[in-house]
Amino acid sequence: MQDLPLGFDLAAVRAGFKYKDRPDLALIFSRTPARAAGVFTTNAFQAAPVLVARENLDRSDLMRAVLVNAGQANACTGEEGLADCRRTLDLLAGHLDISAGEILPASTGVIGVRMPMPTWEKSLPGLVENLGKCTGEQAAMAIMTTDTFPKTAAREIELDQGRVRFWGMTKGAGMICPDMATMLAFVLTDLQVDGALWQEMLAGAMEQSFNAITVDGDTSTNDCVLALAGGGSRAGLHSSRDRDIAAKALEDVCRDLAYQIVKDAEGGTKVMHIRVTGAADSLDARKAARAVGNSSLVKTAMFGCDPNWGRIVAALGRSGAVFDPDKVRLSLAGLEIFSKGRPVDMDIDEVFAPLLSSRDIQVDIDLGRGQGEYFLMASDLTDEYIRINSDYRS
Amino acid sequence: MQDLPLGFDLAAVRAGFKYKDRPDLALIFSRTPARAAGVFTTNAFQAAPVLVARENLDRSDLMRAVLVNAGQANACTGEEGLADCRRTLDLLAGHLDISAGEILPASTGVIGVRMPMPTWEKSLPGLVENLGKCTGEQAAMAIMTTDTFPKTAAREIELDQGRVRFWGMTKGAGMICPDMATMLAFVLTDLQVDGALWQEMLAGAMEQSFNAITVDGDTSTNDCVLALAGGGSRAGLHSSRDRDIAAKALEDVCRDLAYQIVKDAEGGTKVMHIRVTGAADSLDARKAARAVGNSSLVKTAMFGCDPNWGRIVAALGRSGAVFDPDKVRLSLAGLEIFSKGRPVDMDIDEVFAPLLSSRDIQVDIDLGRGQGEYFLMASDLTDEYIRINSDYRS
Repeated sequence: MQDLPLGFDLAAVRAGFKYKDRPDLALIFSRTPARAAGVFTTNAFQAAPVLVARENLDRSDLMRAVLVNAGQANACTGEEGLADCRRTLDLLAGHLDISAGEILPASTGVIGVRMPMPTWEKSLPGLVENLGKCTGEQAAMAIMTTDTFPKTAAREIELDQGRVRFWGMTKGAGMICPDMATMLAFVLTDLQVDGALWQEMLAGAMEQSFNAITVDGDTSTNDCVLALAGGGSRAGLHSSRDRDIAAKALEDVCRDLAYQIVKDAEGGTKVMHIRVTGAADSLDARKAARAVGNSSLVKTAMFGCDPNWGRIVAALGRSGAVFDPDKVRLSLAGLEIFSKGRPVDMDIDEVFAPLLSSRDIQVDIDLGRGQGEYFLMASDLTDEYIRINSDYRS
Repeated sequence: MQDLPLGFDLAAVRAGFKYKDRPDLALIFSRTPARAAGVFTTNAFQAAPVLVARENLDRSDLMRAVLVNAGQANACTGEEGLADCRRTLDLLAGHLDISAGEILPASTGVIGVRMPMPTWEKSLPGLVENLGKCTGEQAAMAIMTTDTFPKTAAREIELDQGRVRFWGMTKGAGMICPDMATMLAFVLTDLQVDGALWQEMLAGAMEQSFNAITVDGDTSTNDCVLALAGGGSRAGLHSSRDRDIAAKALEDVCRDLAYQIVKDAEGGTKVMHIRVTGAADSLDARKAARAVGNSSLVKTAMFGCDPNWGRIVAALGRSGAVFDPDKVRLSLAGLEIFSKGRPVDMDIDEVFAPLLSSRDIQVDIDLGRGQGEYFLMASDLTDEYIRINSDYRS
C-alpha cells in the first residue's frame, strides 16, 4: 500500500449522488494549513466548484481540505449552483471547525442538475467521522464516474533534510483533451515549500502530464488539478538538486496519473505515445501531435491493430504544421514505416500488425524541419466508446 | 432521370482497381472545350492527381475531360505516382484524340500504393467506347468507395437567353471535414461563362456546401471539386439577375451533394444542421460550429437520440469562441433547451427525445455577442463507423 504524505487524512462515504453501490464523496484533510496550488479548465463554461475553488485560492494559498463528489458536476446551474457549492463548504467547515475559505471543492458528473442539499447534509457528518480510516485507493474509488479502476500514484524522494512523499489520485475517462478535461486530480506532499514556488512547480508539471493526453478531444467544465503541500516531512528545498528532485517527483506522479487516465479511456484498448520532433517550433509540434492523437481514423486504425500510416500522414498534412512532406519520417512501435514521402519497402502488414497488438504503441514523427518537440498520450476509439457515450444520458 | 447539361457525355467501366463487382472508372467528356474551375484539398500531402490537375488548370482553363478512378488514391506514391498519373492522361488523350493537358485526373481510395498500369491500359479503350451510354447515376456509382449510395444533384434555370442545366456528382463518406475531405465532386453545366467568373462562382459555392460539412474532422490528400462549363446551352450571364440565379443553382447543386455526403457518413444515422449566430465574427462562429460538429461526445449523444445539451455547451466552451456563457441560447429541433447559463425548466427527456429520432436535426446556437454566423452539417458517430474504420485496412 502506498504511504500517504505525513499530515494528511482521507475519508470517503456513500452519499448517493448517483452511484448507490459505492462511495461517491471524498475528503482530503490536512492537519495543518497546507500550501495549495491549482490548475483549472480553460472551458468558458466553468462549473460552480471551479469558480469557488479559484475564488478561495485567490484569497489565500493556505488550505485545510479538499471536498470532492462524483455523479453531479454542479455545472450550468447558475447562481443557485454557486450558492449550493458555498453551502456545502459552510457545512463541512462547521464539522471540521475550520473556515469555509480553507476548503477547495471539486465535482464531477452530470452537467446542469442542481445538487440535492439534503444528501450533503446527511453525508457530511459520516464523512468527517471516516477521516483517517480511508486508504488512498478507497478515496480514489470515491471520485470515479465512468472510470473502470481507481487511479493513484506515489513517489518518495530523499532531500538534504530528509524523506519527502508525493501522492496523487485522479479520475477521468471520457471528455479528455489537452488543457484539462472531465478530469479531477489531487496531489499531496509533505514537502515544505512556499506557495508561489508550489504553484509554479504544479503548473510546470502539467505540460508533460495532464496537458499531454487526449481521449476524445473534448475539454470539460469541471477539470482541475489541486495540489496541497503540508510540510509534514519538515524537509524543504535547500539546494537546486532538491528542487530538481522534487519537481521531477511531482511531474512523475502527474504523468503516471495522466497515463492511467488514457489507459482507462472510455472503451479504450490502446495508449498511443505520440512524440513529434523536428517541427518548426513547439506549437507546430503540438498541432501535429494533436491532429494525429485526435483523429478518429487514426484511433480506429489503432483499435484494429492496422499499421495504417496513410491516416497518420493525412492527419499530419491537415494539422496546419509547416513542413516538407518529403522530409517527414514516421515510426510505429520503434520501426520506420514512412519516409521521404513514401511507405518503406517491406511487407508492412506482416511486420507491423503483430507489433500493434500491444497496449502501448510508440508513434514517433520527425517533421524534418526544426527543433520543435511535443509529446502526447492518446487513446484509441472503439465500439465500446460509442456504446458508453450513446447510451441515453450516460 | 436527370438531364445532363448539353454537350457532355459520361462513361463508366469495371477496371478492377479494388472493386471487382461494379464500375470503378469514370469519364466525363465535353464535346467542345469547357471552361474549367477547381478547388483542391488543403492537406500538405497532395496526391498525384491533385498535383497534375492543378498543373493542367494553371496552364489553361479550357478542358475536355475528367478521368476518375475509385479504389486507389495514388497519394504518397512519390515521383513514380506522378509519372503514372501523367501516363494515364497520355493514354486517354490518344484514345480521345485530344491533348493530355485537356484532361483533369482525380483518384480516391487507398493511400500509398502505386496504380497498376496494365489495368489502365486494358480499361481505357472500353471506357471511351462507353461514352454516351452511361447515365449520371451509373457514373456516380463508379466513383464510390465506402459510399452506400450514388450521389447526384441537378438544377435547371431559365436565363434571359434560355434554359441552362447544372448537374453534379460526388463521393465521400469518411475522412470528411471542412476545407475538403476524401471527397471528390464534379459539377457540369451548359452555361456560357468565362473562366475567371466560373472559378469565382465555384469558390463562392464552397463555403455553404463542401466546406460546411464534417463527418470525422479529417481532411484527405485527394479532395477536389472540379467544375466544367461547356456553354452548350448558348445562354450566358447577361444581367445581374442571371448571375444571381446561376450562382444560386450552382450553390444548390453543391449543397445538395454535400448534404448527401453527410447523410451517407460512414455508419451515420443523423445529420446535424448546426447554425451558429450571434458570434463576435464569422471566424468565431466557425470555431463554435466546428467544435460542436466534431465533438465525439455530441455525435454519440445524437446517435443515442439523447438531448444532452451539456455536451454541446461544453464543446462551445472549449471552442475558443469568445462569448458570455450567460447569454448563450441553444435550440434543438427548433425548441429552446438552454439559455442564460441554464437548461430550460421542462421535462427535457420527455419533450426532446422524440424530436431527436429524426434523421435531420436542427442545432441552433446563438452566442449572444455579435453578428457572426456560420453553418455546418455534421454526422453522428456510431458503432458502425468504428466497425468500418477498424476493420483491417478498410
